[in-house]
Amino acid sequence: MKFQELILQRQSVRRYQDKAVEPEKLEQCLEAARLTPSASNSQPWTFLVVNETETLKKLAPLTSGPLKSFNQFVAQAPIIVLMILEKPKLLTELGGRLKKKEYPLIDIGLASGQFCLQATELGLGTCMLGWFDEAALKKLLHIPKDKTIGLLITLGYEPEDYRLRKKIRKKLEEVVKYNRYE
Amino acid sequence: MKFQELILQRQSVRRYQDKAVEPEKLEQCLEAARLTPSASNSQPWTFLVVNETETLKKLAPLTSGPLKSFNQFVAQAPIIVLMILEKPKLLTELGGRLKKKEYPLIDIGLASGQFCLQATELGLGTCMLGWFDEAALKKLLHIPKDKTIGLLITLGYEPEDYRLRKKIRKKLEEVVKYNRYE
Repeated sequence: MKFQELILQRQSVRRYQDKAVEPEKLEQCLEAARLTPSASNSQPWTFLVVNETETLKKLAPLTSGPLKSFNQFVAQAPIIVLMILEKPKLLTELGGRLKKKEYPLIDIGLASGQFCLQATELGLGTCMLGWFDEAALKKLLHIPKDKTIGLLITLGYEPEDYRLRKKIRKKLEEVVKYNRYE
Repeated sequence: MKFQELILQRQSVRRYQDKAVEPEKLEQCLEAARLTPSASNSQPWTFLVVNETETLKKLAPLTSGPLKSFNQFVAQAPIIVLMILEKPKLLTELGGRLKKKEYPLIDIGLASGQFCLQATELGLGTCMLGWFDEAALKKLLHIPKDKTIGLLITLGYEPEDYRLRKKIRKKLEEVVKYNRYE
């Protein structure tokens, strides 16, 4: 598959079949994330895979927002992966502080992208979730308080009738400039 | 090409041929970045392409760090793309503030990944740079002071003798946990 086809195939999947993900497919997605480049090759991440039914049941409501209305589909996903930020290397951390830039967030974005694109190639659906009750998640999953959870990713098989949507994006000329910003 | 081959092919390229990048290849890379998913589909980015020789000459030293020792290769790259953060949608911004999370940095990571992987497929080399003199870059490229430059990406053809390096990464068991962090 051409890379452009792959990125057009990847979409946020918000319904899942009641069907387990093969461990080797999960591992391939984790492997894609593991191989991600990062600032100074710090690899400032832990991928926390939740696949126990009981834990998933407790986890899903923690992504539903203050009105309990968001992300109802999360309860259907057989796997949820938390992309947790770890401290980068000292040089990166000092550089980041100097530059007031949180490089690990960029790195987590890169890793999440590689995870989701790999999943797409394997016929799996994903959805990246940025809204969650971080404190409650930490308590549920025994994550130390000083860690930061960057994103959650749901993983599973979409229903057979799930359709590929057309991507709605700004036009190229709206997001590209040449040689000067203004 | 399988996605795993693509991610193994992509590496930081730190030498470039004196050879222009075809405009249609540059456009394909920008298109891959344009199609990137983002929090609430905010697309909080501008891709600022620098390809004028004179501007590139002034830009390269701004990436060399305080000792003027970093990133000497930047001067060889025929194209440098600045990944600039724009304000996300109001809902994302409010959510981000509530959650103390800078979603646009994650989004910029995702977009940079799609850009670089697309370049790799087209036989182009890239290197993501996180260290640069942001204030000087803004002045040079007429970027408003209130914007944030997330990353710079060099783009060009690597020399024919440039070798694919083996990726040095933590082992999977060092970065993956199941169902609880500790």
